[in-house]
Amino acid sequence: MSDTRDTAEIGLIGLGTMGANLALNIAETGHRIAVWNRTQARTETFVDEAGDLAPNLVPTASLAEFVSAIARPRRIILMVPAGEAVDDQIDALRPLLDAGDVIVDAGNSDWQDTRRRTAAAGEILYLGLGVSGGAEGARNGPSMMAGGSDRAWAALEPVLTLIAARFEGDPCVARLGPDGAGHYVKMVHNGIEYADMQMIAEIYGLMRDGMGRGAAEVGAAFARWNEGPLASYLVEITAAVARTTDPETSRPMLDVIADRAGQKGTGRWTVIDAQTRAAPLPAVEAAVTARVLSGEAAARAEGAEIFGAAGTLDLSDADLEGALLAAKILAYSQGFSLLAAASAEEGWDLPLPRIAEIWRAGCIIRSALLDEMATALTEVPGQRLAFAPAFADRLRSHLPALRRTVAAAVAAGLPVPALASALGYLDTLRQPRGTANLIQAQRDYFGAHGFERVDRPGQTGLHGPWTDA
Amino acid sequence: MSDTRDTAEIGLIGLGTMGANLALNIAETGHRIAVWNRTQARTETFVDEAGDLAPNLVPTASLAEFVSAIARPRRIILMVPAGEAVDDQIDALRPLLDAGDVIVDAGNSDWQDTRRRTAAAGEILYLGLGVSGGAEGARNGPSMMAGGSDRAWAALEPVLTLIAARFEGDPCVARLGPDGAGHYVKMVHNGIEYADMQMIAEIYGLMRDGMGRGAAEVGAAFARWNEGPLASYLVEITAAVARTTDPETSRPMLDVIADRAGQKGTGRWTVIDAQTRAAPLPAVEAAVTARVLSGEAAARAEGAEIFGAAGTLDLSDADLEGALLAAKILAYSQGFSLLAAASAEEGWDLPLPRIAEIWRAGCIIRSALLDEMATALTEVPGQRLAFAPAFADRLRSHLPALRRTVAAAVAAGLPVPALASALGYLDTLRQPRGTANLIQAQRDYFGAHGFERVDRPGQTGLHGPWTDA
Repeated sequence: MSDTRDTAEIGLIGLGTMGANLALNIAETGHRIAVWNRTQARTETFVDEAGDLAPNLVPTASLAEFVSAIARPRRIILMVPAGEAVDDQIDALRPLLDAGDVIVDAGNSDWQDTRRRTAAAGEILYLGLGVSGGAEGARNGPSMMAGGSDRAWAALEPVLTLIAARFEGDPCVARLGPDGAGHYVKMVHNGIEYADMQMIAEIYGLMRDGMGRGAAEVGAAFARWNEGPLASYLVEITAAVARTTDPETSRPMLDVIADRAGQKGTGRWTVIDAQTRAAPLPAVEAAVTARVLSGEAAARAEGAEIFGAAGTLDLSDADLEGALLAAKILAYSQGFSLLAAASAEEGWDLPLPRIAEIWRAGCIIRSALLDEMATALTEVPGQRLAFAPAFADRLRSHLPALRRTVAAAVAAGLPVPALASALGYLDTLRQPRGTANLIQAQRDYFGAHGFERVDRPGQTGLHGPWTDA
Repeated sequence: MSDTRDTAEIGLIGLGTMGANLALNIAETGHRIAVWNRTQARTETFVDEAGDLAPNLVPTASLAEFVSAIARPRRIILMVPAGEAVDDQIDALRPLLDAGDVIVDAGNSDWQDTRRRTAAAGEILYLGLGVSGGAEGARNGPSMMAGGSDRAWAALEPVLTLIAARFEGDPCVARLGPDGAGHYVKMVHNGIEYADMQMIAEIYGLMRDGMGRGAAEVGAAFARWNEGPLASYLVEITAAVARTTDPETSRPMLDVIADRAGQKGTGRWTVIDAQTRAAPLPAVEAAVTARVLSGEAAARAEGAEIFGAAGTLDLSDADLEGALLAAKILAYSQGFSLLAAASAEEGWDLPLPRIAEIWRAGCIIRSALLDEMATALTEVPGQRLAFAPAFADRLRSHLPALRRTVAAAVAAGLPVPALASALGYLDTLRQPRGTANLIQAQRDYFGAHGFERVDRPGQTGLHGPWTDA
């Protein structure tokens, strides 16, 4: 390729769907961007298809050419698969870079890898950047969650601000803390996304299997709900996919798509992280489990054979809408509680309201509610979102619908694991006297583990006068 | 202490509650057992209080004296806290031992540590031994789950067989596989124990808060249930603790014990392991989460303030008994499925029916049902326990009670997260056409992740004709 020395302001490695779209987004801001891909053919196709934006793209044929094409201090965005590929790419880049150059990992990296890579970066600056919004977001404005030093952030902030999604003018990007903080928040974002999608799928299942509705009717309901407090990208696209017809069979697309969900692991990472921190995240756990069981088609066929078909439901659209709203608030509340726990444990000082703000546009879980959440988290810092006045009010209004929906589904035999777990979380949190006294009595009985007494708080390791059962 | 050279057949290190009781159990079989404890005063007290068994105990004042007191090849049982203490003890022992000596770790070690230690043991043989039954079990007969080489097992089998609990004459001990297999099975045992205890606590909560029953009435119900298919150690001791009066206040003990549950981590290990393997374990997840939330007393008080008190229930004792039975079967089914998954992944060839057999006596989760489970797992190897004919029949009989119980609790606002999750697991497994088709449609819409079609099985990565929402 032609002489490109120092002609680009920024560089990007990895022209897969996300990388290509992010590069075009940057090019559109007027920045010249050097691009490099492991397979050169992809680089050439990419530039060929870039149309008007091609003049702002600097294709390069080798990593050395790529690095030398970028003005110093260099800003290099990696969009390669999470894991070893990132380490390999850093190793390959390092000898070509100078002190003060910045590597940005914009993939879905494990936050602990980002922490390790930041520590190992030496004189190279390192920024871990969670990017949400899928292909369309990357192209037209993603939500971006950054973790790294102030210097690394300062080097990238101008361009990231230009390419980010905007919510009423406010760019959906922020530095949320040091090292792995950005990728951590992105992980939790994905965990919440799992819960959100599973809850929507459960409501869809109730309409389909318990109320005999076709995909078009389901789509119409979601389209209506998208005009109210549930307004969100996921509800909007649920309406869209439910209303899409398969050109091959003229049947609804939903009816021809197999019911086996894929997952790339961030949901599982989130629940393992939450378990490690003892931060309850049952709605996401239920969602991850549902995806796993979606892969067990043979078992489900056998189960249906053994246990018979489910019954029907007597629920209104308002019940379903209210149930989804209440459960969604509870799932988000769990997610923000996990962020608060991680922030304290890792010393990140995560700005929870700002996180809600940068999720208002660009990302997959963007919704009208997030704007209210940002406000609620500002008013009651550190408090559980579900207990913040605005959301407690909403829950009081819609918990009856969630109760009716879960109870009816349970009675009919239709699975609502995420909706039920969200409700169980709240009901546990509103039980002033729990039942762990029995568990402590059992543990003391069989293992002399000891307990505390209600009338002698603080004194632990007491034992009961148990006699043989 | 006196000259003890070569006078003991076996040795034990660590005279805490479990170690002391296990040593007495071994002494009672007629074996002379050398004992050593980090603090010598404890060793002396232990022997002083051993009464008739003292002649079979060989107290030692140093690790060297301890080792030289044991006939070769030496068999040395460690009963020290899991973690670093085990590594430290092995390091201290190693220079004093000879090839062919056997170290037995009888603590609650992480199975991965046991695997690592087995690999590092070199010419020393190593046996990882999960021991369940609490203090009373250790003294009079525990259930023991061994992992290690055939040689290590052969060295210990005779004495372990003598001290084990017996179910109709059959000793509750077995070698279940190599290296970490024994500690792994013990970990899953503890996970199931968490679920079992939580489900019992939920039923207790329904009686207490939804049906206005006092502890004595609760105890009477559990005592009755202990005569039927729920007959088990945990139901038996629930009856016992519920009927115990506090001598200080003359109130029921349950009413004076604080509702904050402790946990030592094996429940959490189990759910993290299950998530790592993508093996669903929702009942245990719900139990671990419930223990965590039991520690959030301030939040629960605030939640009660915000959301108000729960309502009452219209349920019969038969409903509660059937609900507990059905949910318990589902929790055990999840646990055995996890064991099957781990067995395949780790190449252990775990004998599931034998595991059920050695859990029939001695351990905390011993129950009448486990005998039936052993038979069911023999008849349908590898199958889900819940689908085995005998248990499918039981479930068909008692699922209506579980549905009524969960639906009533959900409507009243009383938390039943473990019961509900067990039911959700089954309802997911009996839905022949799931709802993951919607999730796949969403994922393809926003991330071009692709899907499979029902009419073209095996062909993945297809995309929908989505248009903008």
